Amino acid sequence: MLGQYLQEVRKKAPLIHNITNYVTVNDCANILLACGASPIMADDKNEAAEITAICNGLNINIGTLNERTIDSMLSAGEKAAQLQHPILLDPVGAGASAMRTATAKKILDKLPITVLRGNISEIKILSTGQGIIHGVDANAADRVTEDNLFEYMKIASQLAGKLQTIVAISGEIDIIADKDQAAAVSNGHSLMSKITGSGCMLSALTTAYAAANQQDIFTAVLAAFCSMGIAGEIAANRMTDLDGNASFRNYLIDAVYNMTAEQLDTGAKYQLMVYND
Amino acid sequence: MLGQYLQEVRKKAPLIHNITNYVTVNDCANILLACGASPIMADDKNEAAEITAICNGLNINIGTLNERTIDSMLSAGEKAAQLQHPILLDPVGAGASAMRTATAKKILDKLPITVLRGNISEIKILSTGQGIIHGVDANAADRVTEDNLFEYMKIASQLAGKLQTIVAISGEIDIIADKDQAAAVSNGHSLMSKITGSGCMLSALTTAYAAANQQDIFTAVLAAFCSMGIAGEIAANRMTDLDGNASFRNYLIDAVYNMTAEQLDTGAKYQLMVYND
Amino acid sequence: MLGQYLQEVRKKAPLIHNITNYVTVNDCANILLACGASPIMADDKNEAAEITAICNGLNINIGTLNERTIDSMLSAGEKAAQLQHPILLDPVGAGASAMRTATAKKILDKLPITVLRGNISEIKILSTGQGIIHGVDANAADRVTEDNLFEYMKIASQLAGKLQTIVAISGEIDIIADKDQAAAVSNGHSLMSKITGSGCMLSALTTAYAAANQQDIFTAVLAAFCSMGIAGEIAANRMTDLDGNASFRNYLIDAVYNMTAEQLDTGAKYQLMVYND
Repeated sequence: MLGQYLQEVRKKAPLIHNITNYVTVNDCANILLACGASPIMADDKNEAAEITAICNGLNINIGTLNERTIDSMLSAGEKAAQLQHPILLDPVGAGASAMRTATAKKILDKLPITVLRGNISEIKILSTGQGIIHGVDANAADRVTEDNLFEYMKIASQLAGKLQTIVAISGEIDIIADKDQAAAVSNGHSLMSKITGSGCMLSALTTAYAAANQQDIFTAVLAAFCSMGIAGEIAANRMTDLDGNASFRNYLIDAVYNMTAEQLDTGAKYQLMVYND
Repeated sequence: MLGQYLQEVRKKAPLIHNITNYVTVNDCANILLACGASPIMADDKNEAAEITAICNGLNINIGTLNERTIDSMLSAGEKAAQLQHPILLDPVGAGASAMRTATAKKILDKLPITVLRGNISEIKILSTGQGIIHGVDANAADRVTEDNLFEYMKIASQLAGKLQTIVAISGEIDIIADKDQAAAVSNGHSLMSKITGSGCMLSALTTAYAAANQQDIFTAVLAAFCSMGIAGEIAANRMTDLDGNASFRNYLIDAVYNMTAEQLDTGAKYQLMVYND
Repeated sequence: MLGQYLQEVRKKAPLIHNITNYVTVNDCANILLACGASPIMADDKNEAAEITAICNGLNINIGTLNERTIDSMLSAGEKAAQLQHPILLDPVGAGASAMRTATAKKILDKLPITVLRGNISEIKILSTGQGIIHGVDANAADRVTEDNLFEYMKIASQLAGKLQTIVAISGEIDIIADKDQAAAVSNGHSLMSKITGSGCMLSALTTAYAAANQQDIFTAVLAAFCSMGIAGEIAANRMTDLDGNASFRNYLIDAVYNMTAEQLDTGAKYQLMVYND
């Protein structure tokens, strides 16, 4: 079933506008090409909205944020909203500085964000205004485990309702929630936390899936998360004794490139909760 | 014959100043090192001209353009012109926004560009002011094929005459033209369109070949295009079932690194038209 | 003995704040993850000091310097100094432009730099104000050889005393010096000069080793240099006939990822001079 969502990406080849950080931007471009989408990066306020207008989806990532690009994010976002393009916000490092937290909140407040994708610590900060953050990685204390999973799923769904968005939390177990339902994805591999850009790439990929599957964005996000997790498993399987995180990064993107609808259908591991309250 | 042009790059090790986008900048640096040249990146207007002065060629690429760097491009270009260094312009995404089109035109107007290298859609926009562009990739309708090849070669040569530059158009079939002649290169592989940076890397490589072979820049550009195409073929040959676009990118740069003059001489596939009108 | 310094990096997982160039930033992030540290990149003056405050070390690299980031470097540096975090300065391209030379000098003057890491030409420029620089690579005339090694070691130690810092010079033979001692490291491989980012990655790695081993930063820097050199040797050993500089880059990071304390202890090749004058 999820495989169809991949096929739509390949068929429609959505053009994704990325306003993103300079650390992982190359990986984001290559993973978009790997899944069948096309990337464009443009962050000057004089062209941001115009570039968005020729695209099918917008990926806003606040890593290496600077004053110059905040206006571009808002301008591109307003255009995307007008055109009803999906908009994903990746609040990289929210909580690590006042500027990042405030910018993430401002973007959430001013734009109709379709998908909010971050790690559990970033989402907590934006949800409660509280939490401790250690750099751009999630805090161990915030970790989603089998024990607290159902509680976190419910909270994510409530947050999704409050923010009127899909909340997508990546981690050892991923959680994707809208106001009515939540899915927990157990695909993935621990090596994904040993490369830079796992999260940024997932955000780019998710934007492509959402742009190509607007009739059901919740399931599109679920498909994107499962495909990334399965790619991580395939990449880990390719590792030799001499391979390390650099080779893993290449194998991960390679696996997204070679992924078939069947691989995604058979490899996806998730559970779904539907809320009727 | 073309192999000599590669040998000159290796012998002279030209230092190339790149004012380029942050998406593919690392690949541009590595491909310059791979071919035997050296890269330097500097885009602040306070040092752009000074850096150009210690270099042998200038590569201007307008992907991820911003207001701050436009002045740097012009300043570096003026210095390169004074010093008679070759200047390459890669008008990434011209036609995709008014800012990019206007900037590409301004640079073409103000600087004595030695090589204008883009895809067919970008070149059309700059030539006619007309055309439709879909992101940073060429439009399918603009595609150079066996059927329209000779027509496009002639048009490219006329454009080269009008702009007083070498026009170098990359695609399935590449066209390189000056006012008196045009070459069509059929080296390459379709996987090159599945990675980000094929075009940017080709621009960097072409600048190095031009800088090291100033006595015949037309043939230098032809050699650079053939070497990139052959590298794409070699890289495609290395692909295993599990490899995807990330591995292909590495193999492509590796192939440029290992290329011999003999490989370039025997592998180059092109036809040349000389115009006597 | 040096292996313990690697173990401390793995145990403490220091978070390193990098204000660095956009050419090699992805490689810097991945090599920090490879050695067991964590990277964060933030260069806006509105958050630079705040980000530094949650980190354990600061890596300042002036490649692709621009006006906007100079203030951020100083602001982050002042905070790091207050908190007694190690601060590394990589004066990429000092000597290549007045702006770079002046900025490197200003940073050296205003901040208590813990480690100054550059190539021999960059260090010479900052030491004497004299020298000729060809881009971002060291000048052949400045090369450290077996013949001039002891002379250079002594000069480096004197410079370290004058600047009150550790001077760490990378090249075919590396030199690490404080006012009382100097080490010469002969690990490494010539392929390291065929990729972009060898120096930048070494600076990031060195910052991590210094942050995790504050009780003896001189030896921490020595351990970082040896580990990078050994990784270069391991990577070179993995090269096949078709591999080039792109594969080498991956193998290098992979080797840092897989390095054991034992590999570092047995593979390290250095000599140490202690000065009692």
